[in-house]
Amino acid sequence: MSRYPALLLLILLCAAHADEGMWQPRQLPQLAAQLKQAGLKIPPQDLSDLTDYPMGAIVGLGYCSASFVSPEGLVVTNHHCVQQILQHNSTPDSNLIESGYLAEAYDEELPGGPGQRILVTVQVEDVSTKMLGGLDDGIDGLLRKQTLESREKELVAECENEPRYRCKVHAFFDGLSFFLIRQLEILDVRLVYAPARNIGEFGGDIDNWMWPRHTGDYSFLRAYVAADGKPAAYSRDNEPYRPEHHLTVATGGLAEGDFTMALGYPGQTYRHRLASEAAQISRWYYPLRKQLYEQMLGLINDQTAQRPDAAIKYNSLVQGLNNVIKNYGGMIEGFDRSGLVARKKQRERELSLWLEQQEFANAPLADLDKLVSEYRSGREQRMYYRDFLRRRATLLTAATRIYRLSKEKEKPDAGREPGYQERDWPRIRESLERIESSFDAQADQALLLHHLALYNEQLQADQRVAPLDRWFDLDGKKFDSKRIGRLADDMYSRTRLGDTATRIELMQASPDSLESSEDPFIRLAVKLYADDLAREETEKRFQGRFQLARSQYMEALGQWLKQQGKPLYPDANGTLRVTFGQVTGYQPRDGVRYTPFTTVAGVAAKHTGQAPFDAPAALLAAIGREHFGVFADAELGTVPVNFLATLDSTGGNSGSAVLNAEGELVGLLFDGNYESINADWYFEPEITRTICVDMRYVLWIMETVDGAHRLLREMGLGPAALHARRPPASVN
Amino acid sequence: MSRYPALLLLILLCAAHADEGMWQPRQLPQLAAQLKQAGLKIPPQDLSDLTDYPMGAIVGLGYCSASFVSPEGLVVTNHHCVQQILQHNSTPDSNLIESGYLAEAYDEELPGGPGQRILVTVQVEDVSTKMLGGLDDGIDGLLRKQTLESREKELVAECENEPRYRCKVHAFFDGLSFFLIRQLEILDVRLVYAPARNIGEFGGDIDNWMWPRHTGDYSFLRAYVAADGKPAAYSRDNEPYRPEHHLTVATGGLAEGDFTMALGYPGQTYRHRLASEAAQISRWYYPLRKQLYEQMLGLINDQTAQRPDAAIKYNSLVQGLNNVIKNYGGMIEGFDRSGLVARKKQRERELSLWLEQQEFANAPLADLDKLVSEYRSGREQRMYYRDFLRRRATLLTAATRIYRLSKEKEKPDAGREPGYQERDWPRIRESLERIESSFDAQADQALLLHHLALYNEQLQADQRVAPLDRWFDLDGKKFDSKRIGRLADDMYSRTRLGDTATRIELMQASPDSLESSEDPFIRLAVKLYADDLAREETEKRFQGRFQLARSQYMEALGQWLKQQGKPLYPDANGTLRVTFGQVTGYQPRDGVRYTPFTTVAGVAAKHTGQAPFDAPAALLAAIGREHFGVFADAELGTVPVNFLATLDSTGGNSGSAVLNAEGELVGLLFDGNYESINADWYFEPEITRTICVDMRYVLWIMETVDGAHRLLREMGLGPAALHARRPPASVN
Repeated sequence: MSRYPALLLLILLCAAHADEGMWQPRQLPQLAAQLKQAGLKIPPQDLSDLTDYPMGAIVGLGYCSASFVSPEGLVVTNHHCVQQILQHNSTPDSNLIESGYLAEAYDEELPGGPGQRILVTVQVEDVSTKMLGGLDDGIDGLLRKQTLESREKELVAECENEPRYRCKVHAFFDGLSFFLIRQLEILDVRLVYAPARNIGEFGGDIDNWMWPRHTGDYSFLRAYVAADGKPAAYSRDNEPYRPEHHLTVATGGLAEGDFTMALGYPGQTYRHRLASEAAQISRWYYPLRKQLYEQMLGLINDQTAQRPDAAIKYNSLVQGLNNVIKNYGGMIEGFDRSGLVARKKQRERELSLWLEQQEFANAPLADLDKLVSEYRSGREQRMYYRDFLRRRATLLTAATRIYRLSKEKEKPDAGREPGYQERDWPRIRESLERIESSFDAQADQALLLHHLALYNEQLQADQRVAPLDRWFDLDGKKFDSKRIGRLADDMYSRTRLGDTATRIELMQASPDSLESSEDPFIRLAVKLYADDLAREETEKRFQGRFQLARSQYMEALGQWLKQQGKPLYPDANGTLRVTFGQVTGYQPRDGVRYTPFTTVAGVAAKHTGQAPFDAPAALLAAIGREHFGVFADAELGTVPVNFLATLDSTGGNSGSAVLNAEGELVGLLFDGNYESINADWYFEPEITRTICVDMRYVLWIMETVDGAHRLLREMGLGPAALHARRPPASVN
Repeated sequence: MSRYPALLLLILLCAAHADEGMWQPRQLPQLAAQLKQAGLKIPPQDLSDLTDYPMGAIVGLGYCSASFVSPEGLVVTNHHCVQQILQHNSTPDSNLIESGYLAEAYDEELPGGPGQRILVTVQVEDVSTKMLGGLDDGIDGLLRKQTLESREKELVAECENEPRYRCKVHAFFDGLSFFLIRQLEILDVRLVYAPARNIGEFGGDIDNWMWPRHTGDYSFLRAYVAADGKPAAYSRDNEPYRPEHHLTVATGGLAEGDFTMALGYPGQTYRHRLASEAAQISRWYYPLRKQLYEQMLGLINDQTAQRPDAAIKYNSLVQGLNNVIKNYGGMIEGFDRSGLVARKKQRERELSLWLEQQEFANAPLADLDKLVSEYRSGREQRMYYRDFLRRRATLLTAATRIYRLSKEKEKPDAGREPGYQERDWPRIRESLERIESSFDAQADQALLLHHLALYNEQLQADQRVAPLDRWFDLDGKKFDSKRIGRLADDMYSRTRLGDTATRIELMQASPDSLESSEDPFIRLAVKLYADDLAREETEKRFQGRFQLARSQYMEALGQWLKQQGKPLYPDANGTLRVTFGQVTGYQPRDGVRYTPFTTVAGVAAKHTGQAPFDAPAALLAAIGREHFGVFADAELGTVPVNFLATLDSTGGNSGSAVLNAEGELVGLLFDGNYESINADWYFEPEITRTICVDMRYVLWIMETVDGAHRLLREMGLGPAALHARRPPASVN
């Protein structure tokens, strides 16, 4: 399968560049020297054993990272990672997003809601050969993709022979290698404790991505399992899960220059993308997408302004949109400032020269570049139609999924499209249930009309979707919003998909019955089906070709870097990774240095009384009293709130445990800094920083402000334990 | 005269608090130990001798500070201190404010315009006894003030026996002591070199008061005298003045932590004012004045928007307004943040207790507080009528001065009101001339109407000015802007005071001829005369009472602080002072530290192409070339632009020479930082900083960008001299 069979190993043996790199745990023993030099005091091999401390305590939430911090399955993560759970448990009369929540006993711990999971990675197997063995480079891209899918399904089916596990094959190095990852899937996730909005989101969107930062971005969940200790859906009879390992919470100091590492699930990075891709992303994709998100946000705000019940339903999306809009803005700026495209071009020129010298049989760089350019032709359709019109039309999405499920069910399970196999049905069901807490017909309809108008205006003849045009009688010319508005009114008034029970019931429907349905969204989904399939095939053909082209490019790139003595780590792909670095500030601009710690004094200084700078009175009073005890930093003489570290992180890393050199929990990773916002594309050691909440702030609030004594005791930090610790010398 | 005869000496012997204090040069030998400890390497007594190096090189411009830097009378000061001179030499076709100016030879050096002076302090005499001897505390305030004025006039007349000197009696410690200061007054000031606006004002109003800062705020003037070496009015035959001393320009390094000092003329501070005064200033005076200035600025911008010739006339005022508006905004914030009023109250309570224990014969604190409260009753009239309506009505001001001059001329010279003696006539003439470059009838009329309406609306019956009400037919009720507008139209169309020759000619007019003048502004000035005199008497009576009350308070305060071992320095009063400290940054807020140097890289980073961030192409190119040679800082590896130091400064200090420990010129003081904007009221060691332009940036621009080689040679920094210097080790 590979022209350079020893390459992957060689890559893994490469020297690590301090700070940069989201390492697979299995790579760490090979980085032992650097880790030790950087200050790690536990054996590096401990970090590669997923069943030992501390890796055994690290879990995923699907969209965020988290970790066990007690023998009774208490899990700590970010406050912003439990938004959906807070939303699920909120009503207009009792807004937990605003007030926070503290369960004083197990039976006050609230169900997380549909789809919440705690995922514990238990096994990682290299399946590169099983996936790629015997695959001919010359076959059609679609066949290649289908072969990979079918091999993956087989591997997954075998791996999921026990029902409590969830398995997935992940591509590393863009498909150069594959690993089968097995996760224990805990299905009953409960809300234990979240601080109030004005602690957990203090600074809000204004401070988001910014330093200096003063956000108490932490919350606690708990994993519950059946009485037999096995994962089970929510039941009052379930019991707290007892993990094999949980993190020890440090209360001692963490100081500037200290070694630190973060363990979690970074989602996706693009460090190995081409200059042409960076150019397209920064000059077309991000600017356009940012604009479309801004329009969406404006529309949602208009639609929910006078309706608090609808506003709660959109709260999570609005927060996400604000975040991504700011993110994209920074990305666009960052691309310009860093000259990344030019730098990548230069690097590719150098790589090309080297490839020529090596007399490479194929031209991996040129091939990939050509494929990238070919794929670009469909970008408007993917953006306006697939990503915005289809994805945001909640009921059409539901109908599409329901009809597709009925069609897939006609096949044997192993032949079904990934996402529609029996193993996926609970997730389909949850996604259909979850609509209940986020769907508002009025706003949804407004979004549909908005995106329909955009689709009509932007897509040229060769990109238009015929059955959609026929349904709404569109021709790319004038958009008769009155007529189409009436049509949508009619669809939303006649559909029964707004009802959760109906949606769930329809999961059992046959294609025939759906094809004769009177429900306008079902009817539209049926009409779009053939076109959807054709587009899916086109997309898969590209995916197959990309897997080949990118993995060949990664092989070449890795070999080239290797002979320069430079390390290569795989782009983030949602799997468990380790990043290490040190606590340190940076120089955001000439004449200014950001120091690595903020303190509670800064919370009081930022307090204006107006959200998002409205610290609770109890917190301000506690800050004023200055009873910081063991939670004070010896150097600062006060409680640190957030800190900066040279950790390499991205979306999905939120909630990652940040450990000190001894492997104790010292913080939670929750953000990147604005200057490094395009770190997904490029790591700049001088300015790329990760922002963490200091556990001393978390514990101090728990003890002093929120009275979460039950949880402190559970973490081994009851009054006696805390009292036994000596306060830092310079305090008292 | 004094209850505590030895007090003043005791005060001067007090230990200096590092960094805080605008010291009289004569105090410095008594601070020798601290100065040495702080790092000063030249003997402190050298700094107290005004006729030796370096003090002999320090000069004033009246509104700014400056210093001689060559044997041919070359003077360096801030760019923002030569605005009026640039404006005087600008036309719509040749805007020197924008382009800057470089004289390639003596005969290209441009006349500074009316009223420009270079003032060299040559003698300082303690005249406390002469001023205060035999003055009874019990006499009426008006008589007290008149006695002080008449004694001052005698002292000044004697001191100015030679025409080239200008003398003035300055009150120190709020009138506890008096010094007669004699200055050589150089009357022919010429513009030699000013960088372009986008160097000298880079960052403009946005960066004003801000760090990080990147402003090349320097310019060069030259003192000219008659062929006999004596000061004389501008003449083509005048020759460069040869000062006894000029500063040596350092090109060596200045680093974080280094000792530094600034020599210049701070204007006014209020460090010893009462809590009640601070409260009134921060809650009434500054907020109202800021609002009135903002209105004025808006009006001027409206009036000059389409008229570049008028805009040039208002340029200097607009710049001043922007500065003061930002300043006041910061002051108001600063008062709130620092809790200054509460702190002063606390201090006064402590002082009161101490005073009671000392069984003071009088109650200096209570007396002063009562007087402050009494004086407050006239504040609206002083604000709306005196400071805004009268002061901004240019032609009425001219007419008032002309008529007053005619009345004063009827008295013997020694009996004339200060400001109207023969010695003052040239200044009166210059002020009447200077109107030409700043007067625009249309805008002036708009301002008059605006302030008239405010006067009408705001002043109650007991504060109204009867002759003004009669002239405009105002009654404090409805303001008939049409009618009054027509009246003003008529005044502006009929007056001849817009003509400079007419104004100058009228300086010779008798009271009789003015009283029969048809000129509407002269007629109004005549009608206001009696009321003006009455208000002046009221004001002087207060001044007399304040001198007594404040000096008694300062005596008590000084004695109290002295027994606590705390130093006392006099508030700034426009006289030559020395402040010393070190180069260091500060923490503006939690998690952020401002580092003490900015660099040329920051100029390029701020450059957007849009004013005020539009660095000239030649400068950007030079930054890009990185040929920094001897001007690079060893540590930074590049040219420093601005730096922060713990120097104690205020308005008037602009342009002050900043010297290193050896007494060499290393920078020019040009601003305070925003966080210490209320330093006039309170010095906070942690955040009070002065912003200086680094001479290495000045010299590098002169050599590399502007080609000011003639001036470099003149300062002893020709190519040979620069070449002989060793570049810093880490560069090259």
